[in-house]
Amino acid sequence: MELTELTVRSFADLLASNAPAPGGGSTAALEGALGAALSAMVSALTVGRKKYEEHWAFNEDVNQKSEALKETFLVAINKDTDAFNAFTAAMALPKETPEEKAARSAAMQEALISCTESPYHMMELCVNALELVDSQIGKTNTNAMSDLGVAALSLGAAIRGAWLNVLINVGGIKNAALAEHYRTDGKALLERGTAVSGSIYARIEAALEEF
Amino acid sequence: MELTELTVRSFADLLASNAPAPGGGSTAALEGALGAALSAMVSALTVGRKKYEEHWAFNEDVNQKSEALKETFLVAINKDTDAFNAFTAAMALPKETPEEKAARSAAMQEALISCTESPYHMMELCVNALELVDSQIGKTNTNAMSDLGVAALSLGAAIRGAWLNVLINVGGIKNAALAEHYRTDGKALLERGTAVSGSIYARIEAALEEF
Repeated sequence: MELTELTVRSFADLLASNAPAPGGGSTAALEGALGAALSAMVSALTVGRKKYEEHWAFNEDVNQKSEALKETFLVAINKDTDAFNAFTAAMALPKETPEEKAARSAAMQEALISCTESPYHMMELCVNALELVDSQIGKTNTNAMSDLGVAALSLGAAIRGAWLNVLINVGGIKNAALAEHYRTDGKALLERGTAVSGSIYARIEAALEEF
Repeated sequence: MELTELTVRSFADLLASNAPAPGGGSTAALEGALGAALSAMVSALTVGRKKYEEHWAFNEDVNQKSEALKETFLVAINKDTDAFNAFTAAMALPKETPEEKAARSAAMQEALISCTESPYHMMELCVNALELVDSQIGKTNTNAMSDLGVAALSLGAAIRGAWLNVLINVGGIKNAALAEHYRTDGKALLERGTAVSGSIYARIEAALEEF
């Protein structure tokens, strides 16, 4: 089943159920998709308006990039749940003989790495999307300023949510160098993304308080 | 059209388009629904597990409340876009005669108040949902700790996103007392909600760094 083919209501209902997946990882991916979609919308609402003519080419470019990011996030909604389900399947493998134990352990490691790589990759996407949103400030339709703010907030929630999903999985990875990469580089992405998201929100809130 | 009956993919595609609605308001409502759904899921994944038997009754209660909040947020996804569309319709009313001008102005004021009330109400829901999530810490399945964190992040993004939507609309409301209510009480809800959300995230991130 493709989660992105569920209705919004069915997705929320399935999320709320005691089915272990989808969970926070797919939710973070969906919030990334919503943030990228709002970024694309704000540029789409700017192109063609006479007042912003000098920024049309810029916004056409941003719109394409945000649309592409939205697509990648939508794919990640399904991928993250697939990775989680692969881990559950590996856990259920037989573990009677030494050979079975070794095969189960290897399958679990492989699945754990996917469960960590999936949110780590989302964090990279979030930083890219947040930098696009940052570049839109001052060059887009001011009637959509709150939408640009919600884009930054969605991506800010997505990157932190993805980070929690890196953390809950990385502890089980036996390859120490790989685990260290996810922890160190993930932390750097988190810091960059949250700084950009917070800065965008603060500027937009301040502007709207005068609106 | 009920937005919640669109597939997740179609919702994201429509959001990204140059259709002015749905926008950031409905996105904030969806993020509220996702947060409440994850809260419900974490309690559902706790009830029935022997290890947490002392917390079963508590979690059954939280689960019901979070499910109800999820439903209310889902309704708000549609409502927020309806309010925005009513404002656009009021803007398009004829304005030739004094009577037409007065009727248009009254319709615009009524719609603007709906456009402000809708995100203001979401902020109240977010505070309720965040307090539920806060109460779940230490009483729920630790394997779902990251999901509880994503619940808090989603609701934190929702309350700030709703606040930006209050701000972009409240400036146009002519009833000064009503505008002041939205600004003052909205700011108080924002401060309460962001404090709870930030505190939950910080505790869960710290716990997961040791996981």
